[in-house]
This record gives sequence, C-alpha cells and structure tokens, in this order.
Amino acid sequence: MLPDLMAETADKVEVLMKEYLTSLPQISPKLYEAIKYSSLGGGKRFRPFLVTQVGKLWGVDENVSLKAAVAIELIHCYSLVHDDLPAMDDDDLRRGKLTVHKKYDEATAILVGDALQSLAFGILSESTLNLPSEVKVRLIYALSRASGPYGMVLGQMLDIEGEKISHLALNEIKRIQQFKTGALIACSAQFAAILAQVNPQQEEKIYQWGLALGEAFQITDDLLDHFGDTQKMGKRLQKDEGRGKMTFVSLLGVEGAQARLQSLEESAKALLEEFGEKPHILNDLWNWLIKRDH
Amino acid sequence: MLPDLMAETADKVEVLMKEYLTSLPQISPKLYEAIKYSSLGGGKRFRPFLVTQVGKLWGVDENVSLKAAVAIELIHCYSLVHDDLPAMDDDDLRRGKLTVHKKYDEATAILVGDALQSLAFGILSESTLNLPSEVKVRLIYALSRASGPYGMVLGQMLDIEGEKISHLALNEIKRIQQFKTGALIACSAQFAAILAQVNPQQEEKIYQWGLALGEAFQITDDLLDHFGDTQKMGKRLQKDEGRGKMTFVSLLGVEGAQARLQSLEESAKALLEEFGEKPHILNDLWNWLIKRDH
Repeated sequence: MLPDLMAETADKVEVLMKEYLTSLPQISPKLYEAIKYSSLGGGKRFRPFLVTQVGKLWGVDENVSLKAAVAIELIHCYSLVHDDLPAMDDDDLRRGKLTVHKKYDEATAILVGDALQSLAFGILSESTLNLPSEVKVRLIYALSRASGPYGMVLGQMLDIEGEKISHLALNEIKRIQQFKTGALIACSAQFAAILAQVNPQQEEKIYQWGLALGEAFQITDDLLDHFGDTQKMGKRLQKDEGRGKMTFVSLLGVEGAQARLQSLEESAKALLEEFGEKPHILNDLWNWLIKRDH
Repeated sequence: MLPDLMAETADKVEVLMKEYLTSLPQISPKLYEAIKYSSLGGGKRFRPFLVTQVGKLWGVDENVSLKAAVAIELIHCYSLVHDDLPAMDDDDLRRGKLTVHKKYDEATAILVGDALQSLAFGILSESTLNLPSEVKVRLIYALSRASGPYGMVLGQMLDIEGEKISHLALNEIKRIQQFKTGALIACSAQFAAILAQVNPQQEEKIYQWGLALGEAFQITDDLLDHFGDTQKMGKRLQKDEGRGKMTFVSLLGVEGAQARLQSLEESAKALLEEFGEKPHILNDLWNWLIKRDH
C-alpha cells in the first residue's frame, strides 16, 4: 500500500513539475530541453512524499503541500546535476540515464543546476501558490538554510574534502551526511510543519525526526551500495567504497550499521509519540524505507 | 560627486556583505574562505548603488534598500564565479585577482556559486529584514525571474551558443545582453519600486529604464573592451572580439555604437519624465556610466 501511495504521489509531483517546467521560455531549446531532462521522468520523489505525509499529521491540504514540495525536489535535482559534474563526483549515469553533462555538456549542466535553484525559490514566491506571504517567507528561509552553506552545499564540500582523508571518524561521517542529505530531508518534514503553522516545539520535533530519517536513509543507501545490484540502483555500485570513501558500512560494518538503524528507529518513534494516533503512516514510511530492497 | 557617492555606497555594501558572510559556518574553512574571496573586497557594487539611487525617487530608507540590494549583488557574484569556470568563459582573472577556480579549484567554485545563490534568496527571507512579508515575497519573485531561466541563466546559455555562430544579427546580440546582464540591472531598479510599493505602471516604467541602462552599460563595456587598458578593466581585454565573439562594437562599429547610446539616453530620459524633479540623480548616473573611462 505504501509503495502505491508513493508512486501515486510521484505521479502528481511529475505532473506539477512538468507543468512548471514546460512553461519556461524555449528561446534556448537546448537549455529548455536540458532542464526538463534533468528533472522529469524519474526519481522516487521521496522528499515531496515526505512533505505530503508529514502534512497529514496536521491535515495540510495536499494540493498546497505538493506545490511547495516541488521547490524541494527542484533543489534536489539541481544538486544531483552539479554533484555529477567531472569536477565533483564525475558520474556518467544517474537514475539509469546519462548525466546532464554527458547528455549535453558541462556548461549546460552548470547552467541547468543554477536555473533549477532559482526556479525552486521562484515557485515558493509565486502569487498562484495559495499561502499567506508569512508562510511563503518561512518556507523560503528554511529552504535556503537547508540547501546553501548551512546545509547541502556545505555537506558536499565536506564530502569532497573527506575523500582526500584516509580515515574519518564516525561523527565526521555523520556530520557530512547530516549536511549533505540530512538537511534537505529534515527540511521536507519542516515544510509540512510550516505549512500547518504549528508551534516551534512541534516544528523542532518533526525536524529532528527528519534528521533521524535522513541518517537512516543514508545507512540503508550504504547497505544497498554494499549488497545491491546496478539495475535497482540505476547507478554504479560500490562506487563509494570502491574509491576508498568512508561510508557508514565501511566504518561500522554491516552489523554495526544495522544496530545504528535500530537505535535511530527508537529515537524517531519517541519523537513522534506526542502526535497521537496519526504518526502510524510515518512509522510505516520509516519501516518501508529501512527495509527496502527497492 | 557621483563617484564619491558610489564609493560610499560600495563601502556600505561591503560592510553588510562582510557581516553576512563572516557569520557563515566555518566548518569547512575552505568553503568559508572561498565564499568570502569571491564576494568581498572588490567590485563597483553598481547594482546595489542602483537600488539605493532609484529608491530615492520615492524616499525608500537606505538601510532597507541596501540590505535588499545585497541579495542582487550575491546573485551577481555567483554568476561571475560560474561564468569564469573552464567549461564556461574559462577566465583566470577577475577584478585583477585570480578567479575562484584558479585560486581554489573547480569543485569549490561550483559550490561557492551555488552557496551564494541560496544566500541571496535567504537574505530576502530573513526575519531581521524589516519589511512586510508581501514585499519580501515580491522581491524574491523578481530576483528569481531575473536570475534564472527567464533571465541571467538563459542569457549566459544564449551567449555560449552564440559564440559558435559566426554572425549574429543586432537583435540577437541585444536579446542575449538583455537576458544575460540587462535583466539583473533592470531588477535592481525594480527592487526600489517594490520596496516603495509604487503602482504597477511606475514599476514597469522604472524596469524599462533599467533595461535601457543595462543595454547602455553593455555598449560602453564593449567600447571600453575595444579601447581600454587592462589595468582599468582588471581583466583581459578584447577577449570578446579576440575570440571572434560578436559585440555591439563589432556589429555597429564605434560610431554606430555611440549613436545607439544616444538614442537609448533619449528613451531613458523620456521614461523618467513623470517622476518630476527627482530623477536628476539618475540622469547624472546615466551620464557618468556612459562617459566613464573608469
């Protein structure tokens, strides 16, 4: 049932993104095509799913949470395009397709990423987004914090620097992950709280839950990278371990990583307790993500 | 007097930017230093100057217009860092200093540009920016339009594509300029109108004035590139003409370019007429920019 719900949400996200991106100027057909290529027709849309599901805790209108969630997905897409560049992770494949700089060229890939970032902030400031201006401003602030040098960009930088170091301690690996992917995942949960205009304590709790989920997500990713197959992942496998990069698995071992997952699950459940009966969908989501071989 | 005023404003912009950027996390000292290197200690801060001077038409508080203007300057700085990359214009010098990818490396330069863009939108959404949320949202929307695939990014893409074509017509050159640099200059004038909460007709008029100024600015840049010296420009000269790239000067000749400047000046003056006595500072600004050998 959860995979169906996730697929359904992904379809809705795809429709919204397609609508938004096909309305862009076609003055440079290459830029126009490359932007669509980078963002449409793939991806689990995990972050938008999170916005909508967390939003259900407080009855947030899905039409609104989906549109706001597109902003987060655009930031995620831009980060993939830039991370794949030769100067960064130098990847040829992404979601089973050629990366943007391989399909087009490096200059186009740089510009596509830049364009997606400004579109992300643009969509949150559109007059057609049916939200009070105060809420829009708070979403924009949260997204800026999660994606820039307080969050994702800092994480990517630490990750690149970390690759040059032969041994990183667990808390360094955790910190890199928290900035690089955790901040945007936690921001997705926070988006729901901002949309619901809950009190700061509740917003903080769901943000912390998002951080725990982000770490669990990374650990399962490392486990999949260790055990999985290329077809399911849509990208090269053991590329992290293969290049001597530290992961949760290389550092903790398979059993240690699984134990850490267990402990994260417990803290996550505790964080959700105050939200009464409704969090069961979030617990289901957690279980599904952690136990995925998808 | 105008150069003094401009220098004074540049100093204030520098103080604000320094304050904003030195408050960033120092977890990656390299990223932290590279962000400051890319944005501090140089530049005429022409766009912020424009925001403050146009703001004077309507008595906008300079403390507010300067802080909003920092967002535009951050976008401008990010665009320079990315445009200088090897995959783009491949420049080694900027404002007389090594470009970011030369001083650091390509990955850092990509991340610095990405960081600056998210900081630009972030500063406009800060609670310490003393503006109604409606105004913040309108500034963010205008900036997104000017900087992304409706504006600057589109212009850079067209510029790169145009380099591969041996002859471009005047209206193609104009269009590239309008997106690549005109949109953000016009947005600077528009920022003042949004801050002043003027009516849409006035906002449109000042935006059009900004576009005319942007074109005039580019034409004088092409003239300087044709005649100037490296020391004053702080970058390689005749690099555009040298690589066979079309400019206003290569297309119209020196006299034709000067005639076009004249005609732009007339339309610009006409656009400002309805604003009464106050626009004299903007006319002074125009004259100074156009006649500059600075």
